[in-house]
Amino acid sequence: MTAETSSPIRIDRIERAQGLMREQGVAAIVVMNHDDYRWFFGIDRAQPRAIIPASGAPALIAFTAEEEELRSIMGDGPILVWGSVGGQINDVVTRLREITAETRAAPRAPGDRLSVAMQQWFDTPAFLVEMFRKVNPGVELVSSDPIMDPLRGVKEPAEIATMTTAQRVAGIGMDRARSLLGDGATGHDIATEVTYAMMRAGAERTSTPIYVNVGRETCMLHGWQSPRPMRAGDLVVIDLTPVVDGYCANLARTFVLGEPDARQRSLLDAYAALIPVVRDAMRPGATVAQLDSRAEAVLRERGLAQYQVNGIGHGLGLRFEETPASTIIPQHRNVPLREGMTVTIGHTVLAIPGFGGVRHEDVYRVTPDGGAILAPYPIEPVVLASTA
Amino acid sequence: MTAETSSPIRIDRIERAQGLMREQGVAAIVVMNHDDYRWFFGIDRAQPRAIIPASGAPALIAFTAEEEELRSIMGDGPILVWGSVGGQINDVVTRLREITAETRAAPRAPGDRLSVAMQQWFDTPAFLVEMFRKVNPGVELVSSDPIMDPLRGVKEPAEIATMTTAQRVAGIGMDRARSLLGDGATGHDIATEVTYAMMRAGAERTSTPIYVNVGRETCMLHGWQSPRPMRAGDLVVIDLTPVVDGYCANLARTFVLGEPDARQRSLLDAYAALIPVVRDAMRPGATVAQLDSRAEAVLRERGLAQYQVNGIGHGLGLRFEETPASTIIPQHRNVPLREGMTVTIGHTVLAIPGFGGVRHEDVYRVTPDGGAILAPYPIEPVVLASTA
Repeated sequence: MTAETSSPIRIDRIERAQGLMREQGVAAIVVMNHDDYRWFFGIDRAQPRAIIPASGAPALIAFTAEEEELRSIMGDGPILVWGSVGGQINDVVTRLREITAETRAAPRAPGDRLSVAMQQWFDTPAFLVEMFRKVNPGVELVSSDPIMDPLRGVKEPAEIATMTTAQRVAGIGMDRARSLLGDGATGHDIATEVTYAMMRAGAERTSTPIYVNVGRETCMLHGWQSPRPMRAGDLVVIDLTPVVDGYCANLARTFVLGEPDARQRSLLDAYAALIPVVRDAMRPGATVAQLDSRAEAVLRERGLAQYQVNGIGHGLGLRFEETPASTIIPQHRNVPLREGMTVTIGHTVLAIPGFGGVRHEDVYRVTPDGGAILAPYPIEPVVLASTA
Repeated sequence: MTAETSSPIRIDRIERAQGLMREQGVAAIVVMNHDDYRWFFGIDRAQPRAIIPASGAPALIAFTAEEEELRSIMGDGPILVWGSVGGQINDVVTRLREITAETRAAPRAPGDRLSVAMQQWFDTPAFLVEMFRKVNPGVELVSSDPIMDPLRGVKEPAEIATMTTAQRVAGIGMDRARSLLGDGATGHDIATEVTYAMMRAGAERTSTPIYVNVGRETCMLHGWQSPRPMRAGDLVVIDLTPVVDGYCANLARTFVLGEPDARQRSLLDAYAALIPVVRDAMRPGATVAQLDSRAEAVLRERGLAQYQVNGIGHGLGLRFEETPASTIIPQHRNVPLREGMTVTIGHTVLAIPGFGGVRHEDVYRVTPDGGAILAPYPIEPVVLASTA
């Protein structure tokens, strides 16, 4: 029998979440996403499914054939493992009914609906939420953000260390990408070699596809692997998002093949100038709205304010975009940063439509002295294009 | 100006969808997912956003800086491109209001609510659906499956050709994986080399992480990259899902390092025996429920029926799991297959809990003579474990 100390479960985190659940009147959190599952239970699974009640033991839901393997990992911790033959969702619902029945037994104001919290993000499919609502009409489904954001936003030292490693792995990928830039290189070839370099360095996967945007495609707020070979004079934006032990990195750089022309130079100089200004403002209490206005001020001085796009940074950690993620949830523009949060600078592209755009993105830790970069990586955009 | 003939838009598919929308009383389809976007418009984007009204021109929604690039790809086709500064969802909603206003002008039964269809799958996040509902309280949001399934289920010859190529790329990956199997090899090392081999062969990405399950982890219905080095005697399940030009492949094989023991042999033999039986039954009109009972009969003869799991196959194409996807949507168990659909055999693992499991998965085209495999790949489970 495994000693309890060897269990990867973070009982301390579960108890802190349960405290907030009781404060907020939430009966249970249903975990259906990789990042919360990993944060609470220290492991990941293809189908992460768990319920954490406001009091008592969490329940992990696994397929029957996986039950023994899961129990052996979890040790003797206070956890229930529910095996199921292909009916995980049904088991989640069944356990939820038990919890809500137990909670209903406690004295409550009449008419109170029970609240159950779930992450509402890209990994939470609408059809699963619908399924829950249908079988639990008396339960109000709420976002788990008010519980999880206060807990997960500020990173522990071990989390910062892993994120720093992940960011260094991204740097290894960017080194490889830079070595391949040249006349005739394609986005797919670069993505192939960069993926290989990052996985050999320890990346388990990437959060997003590797973006290699070429020429006017560099205007894209997001990106793709350009199908067209790059040519001398092109702007190239490369965005790398390796994941190490579940933690996400984000490193973007813009390159120009050969000597930049005047407009390319003005964009490159402006972006390089706004980064230290935004970094200096990245202190406890600051908001993304405030960081954006710092960036805008730099661009205004340079006559480029009309190209400014809001959302200069976003939170990240076990999820690729964590609160604040203002380009997705506009209200996050006004969420105050806290010391120890991990936030990017360089999320938005500075682009002249139809011409091209520039961005350099890194991850910083919020400190009273401004953003402290996790793993410095040089900004050296000029690459003399070789003939491939 | 680009000639209209160079546009990648599939006007024919849009018109067929519009015909079904009018039959079903659906005012518009909102496309927010990569697979439908690619199927209709022939290209993909990081943020696929489009509206196809029941009559008239589709609207593609792009960020302002991307508008020119998108117009240049789309040519002079009957399409509206809507640029937006970071407000794509707002633009989708605005265009939707215009469409619903136009549709309301037409005579309707009093009290009729307007229906708008959207894909309800893993890529459709609950929070976006909520956002839609809030701003369009008078609109009923319905699943687009009743429109898209009849159109997309049966594959065109060019689609079959691309899916065959994708399946061959998976075979290149499996060759590489097999060459690396041996005492001490890890899931991560194999995934690294296999990803590289498949990307070099043309894969743009994989649909899922590469699974390398070792020992009793082979019981998992899904999988992961095992952190523990494999040893002589281990069962190893490898599942590869490369994507080529948007089309998904799915190839899984089980290996045993050294001579199988009696239980391993019984599982391997049973799986190899059920495949041809299920394949023979994969004809127009058959359902997954019927295929499952064929598989169960084979296992019953061998005294293994208690380990049978339902859902022996699933549809795939531009989406990794398309209708029928019975392990997610139980009603899909009774969807009749049609000639020309592409469906896997080998989705479910035959596992003895705590011991290990076996599966071999391939993609087949439904024909009146049974499933025709897209790209044959050998089933040769025994690998003599070398010392790494």
